[in-house]
Amino acid sequence: SGLVLVKNPHLDLMEEDVLYHLDLGTKTHDLPAMFGDIKFVCVGGSPRRMRAFAQFMQRELGLPAAGEDVADICAGSDRYAMYRAGPVLSVSHGMGIPSISIMLHELIKLLHHAKCRDVTIIRIGTSGGLGIEAGSVVITDMAMDSCFQPRFEQVVLGDVVVRSTELDKDLAEELLACSRDIPDFPTLIGHTMCTYDFYEGQGRLDGALCSFSSEKKLEYLRRAYDAGVRNIEMESTAFAALCGLCGLKGECCHFHLL
Amino acid sequence: SGLVLVKNPHLDLMEEDVLYHLDLGTKTHDLPAMFGDIKFVCVGGSPRRMRAFAQFMQRELGLPAAGEDVADICAGSDRYAMYRAGPVLSVSHGMGIPSISIMLHELIKLLHHAKCRDVTIIRIGTSGGLGIEAGSVVITDMAMDSCFQPRFEQVVLGDVVVRSTELDKDLAEELLACSRDIPDFPTLIGHTMCTYDFYEGQGRLDGALCSFSSEKKLEYLRRAYDAGVRNIEMESTAFAALCGLCGLKGECCHFHLL
Repeated sequence: SGLVLVKNPHLDLMEEDVLYHLDLGTKTHDLPAMFGDIKFVCVGGSPRRMRAFAQFMQRELGLPAAGEDVADICAGSDRYAMYRAGPVLSVSHGMGIPSISIMLHELIKLLHHAKCRDVTIIRIGTSGGLGIEAGSVVITDMAMDSCFQPRFEQVVLGDVVVRSTELDKDLAEELLACSRDIPDFPTLIGHTMCTYDFYEGQGRLDGALCSFSSEKKLEYLRRAYDAGVRNIEMESTAFAALCGLCGLKGECCHFHLL
Repeated sequence: SGLVLVKNPHLDLMEEDVLYHLDLGTKTHDLPAMFGDIKFVCVGGSPRRMRAFAQFMQRELGLPAAGEDVADICAGSDRYAMYRAGPVLSVSHGMGIPSISIMLHELIKLLHHAKCRDVTIIRIGTSGGLGIEAGSVVITDMAMDSCFQPRFEQVVLGDVVVRSTELDKDLAEELLACSRDIPDFPTLIGHTMCTYDFYEGQGRLDGALCSFSSEKKLEYLRRAYDAGVRNIEMESTAFAALCGLCGLKGECCHFHLL
């Protein structure tokens, strides 16, 4: 049916669903009227970047409001920012798995309440590249944990539940095809490693704590490369697991800055 | 000596230390001049709340700038917000362990570069209470993971390192004594459980996914209560572990909203 799947039998029994961190709710807002026509959701860590992206989409789509400011739909909350440009929603998620998880739970319920159909969700973020050219974009075919396993471990009431982190392969190929139309835009499909920590977790030598040598760091990153990892970030496994379970066609595209 | 301990031998060899997510650095900013006199750092998830807290501190301390606006020291970054009121620094950290970890790594290095001495750091946040009166404040003696263990598991180059999550007991008692001076301000010392997820991880029935019954949820929360847990949030284990390792006198105070 193309609808977003919410796998929670309790939701139907609730009189009101408050999407706390988005400052939206089923009783306070007409979600189908506000969001029913959304077809694409783009998410990224930084609120300023997601605002700039919404303005970019307004121009690209030639919308009447192009050039004007965009309003933050979640202005009542300072946890996340949300903007729209025609059928495209642009939402920030902060940094790390717990932060993106809260946003995705509430966004998925929003799309469900709004009765959206055939929604594609793309994470557009920055990441650290591994053995790839600076300025490259990595399209993720599979998100991996820090042991190079394609899994997301979710704790549910104290028990660990293991979830798949595969992303939409057709969408990945489609995005790769788009990149070929743009000159000098190095793009590749690869595995993305997702860590819970930016400094010690990603082998950085410049955190407040560092107990390893430069050699050990390089050895770890080499092992990651050999396992197919082409970039490292902090949200992709949770993103892939939640989108997969809720029937959202999802993909991660990361820009390798340095 | 009261100095903040940075346990990273590589730092001394670096020509410049860029605190990326704070938009500060050792070459671009005179950190000792800007922060050398800081004695207290208060951190919390929401940037707006940390701004309001800095303004509150300006009034409480009777500073000349009281009543005026406070400037965001990290205005160049939209990852975190930082304000100061006399010797008090007020910093936001977003939601979840990965987000607070990035901020703490860079804050600890900031305090180190600024040669601050005898700094006390307090997390002031909201949390869900367990079997306690609404409006209570829980002062954490020990942060626990979702299996009710007082530990923080940090992945370092793919290996799990277990760290202690004990907080400063004297500081906890001191804060409890302060609360006694305020009428109708229910305050207690207890364990705080820290999870990686707000919905499934904390037994909520209103996420996009929920695979458990209300009974299973209550059974889990009862086990947590029996283990000494009095509130649940998403940052305390990483906060306790990092502060402990870096010689920062740290404490978590959480306000139980509902």
